[in-house]
Amino acid sequence: MDVRIITISREFGSGGRTIGKKLAERLGVPYYDKELVNEVALETGFDPRYIEEAGEHAPIGGRLAYAFNMQGVPGIMRGLSATDFLWCIQREVILRIADKGPCVIVGRSADYILKDRKDALHVFVHADMDFRAERIVRLYGQSEKTPEQRLRDKDKKRAVNYEHYTGREWGRSQNYTLTLNSGAIGVERCVDLLADLVGPIKAETPAPETAQ
Amino acid sequence: MDVRIITISREFGSGGRTIGKKLAERLGVPYYDKELVNEVALETGFDPRYIEEAGEHAPIGGRLAYAFNMQGVPGIMRGLSATDFLWCIQREVILRIADKGPCVIVGRSADYILKDRKDALHVFVHADMDFRAERIVRLYGQSEKTPEQRLRDKDKKRAVNYEHYTGREWGRSQNYTLTLNSGAIGVERCVDLLADLVGPIKAETPAPETAQ
Repeated sequence: MDVRIITISREFGSGGRTIGKKLAERLGVPYYDKELVNEVALETGFDPRYIEEAGEHAPIGGRLAYAFNMQGVPGIMRGLSATDFLWCIQREVILRIADKGPCVIVGRSADYILKDRKDALHVFVHADMDFRAERIVRLYGQSEKTPEQRLRDKDKKRAVNYEHYTGREWGRSQNYTLTLNSGAIGVERCVDLLADLVGPIKAETPAPETAQ
Repeated sequence: MDVRIITISREFGSGGRTIGKKLAERLGVPYYDKELVNEVALETGFDPRYIEEAGEHAPIGGRLAYAFNMQGVPGIMRGLSATDFLWCIQREVILRIADKGPCVIVGRSADYILKDRKDALHVFVHADMDFRAERIVRLYGQSEKTPEQRLRDKDKKRAVNYEHYTGREWGRSQNYTLTLNSGAIGVERCVDLLADLVGPIKAETPAPETAQ
């Protein structure tokens, strides 16, 4: 495989984001996660916090879930709910980022959006409940809910969003080039394994100018 | 991870068996597939061809699907159907093989049977329909059914058997330490990746004799 794009989908707390970030550093390519949210915010005018929440979560209602009929919204977007509109913009942004050059993209159903690219490696990272529970409490602190409830809620939201927009089952191994249990393998070993598999990413060679 | 046992589950035609065999050679450990069938045949007196067919397939009826009530069958096994009886014996044989020492076991729900062993690495190998169709025609020749029908039938049977006896979904990434798309990665690269991940398997150190 001549890999140029790596998408990372992950269970909450599995360390998928850390793996993506370290892999991007190791490969010397851009990393998109929050960066993608900011790009979508610029395109849509939505608050980045709303995009972060709704961009990977269930397409439910809320104060912004109305139909778009106002001026300035392209015709094809009119009548869409806010989450559908967000999905469309997010999809455009991801396709554009992937066209720009080699990168690592975390979350946001990028595996589905880029499924037809022959140069994309799609990864799903998961881990046992105990490993993830310990990790989220260490990284994000305690909350009113138990760590297990937080994990179940967040995974459920990601799964519903993914299934709604892609028609595929979230976490089904056949959707990904490879899936990794980061708890059993270890976060660092996952980075090593992926970096070895991808190998050095060749820089884009500009097309030679043709003599007229 | 200090891996001593590798289980490989696989979609039909994905090359999972080849990967298992090559990995076992590379690691210098025994490989169980047909060997396991023969061991179960010895235990049960069933025809190896029946075990090979029924051991991974749907627990449906047939001329052998009767209850065991005869002499010689342990009390706990009486009243079981032939496929349930086969499952129990197969499970015992797999647990015993794993206790004997490092090895690679292909198929037969070994991932579930050995799920509580901390020294086991569980792998699921899958690939796109085109890759698998080309492969089964090349390896096993044509048949009355299209390659796609053969793949779907065999996968379906394995999935039904797995789900019936384990209560888990076949191919769900969370059941495995890692899953690999052998079509995208390549069969040889899958062997390299697994051999790197497992590393050299240490020989069993016999317990020192204690002086009386």
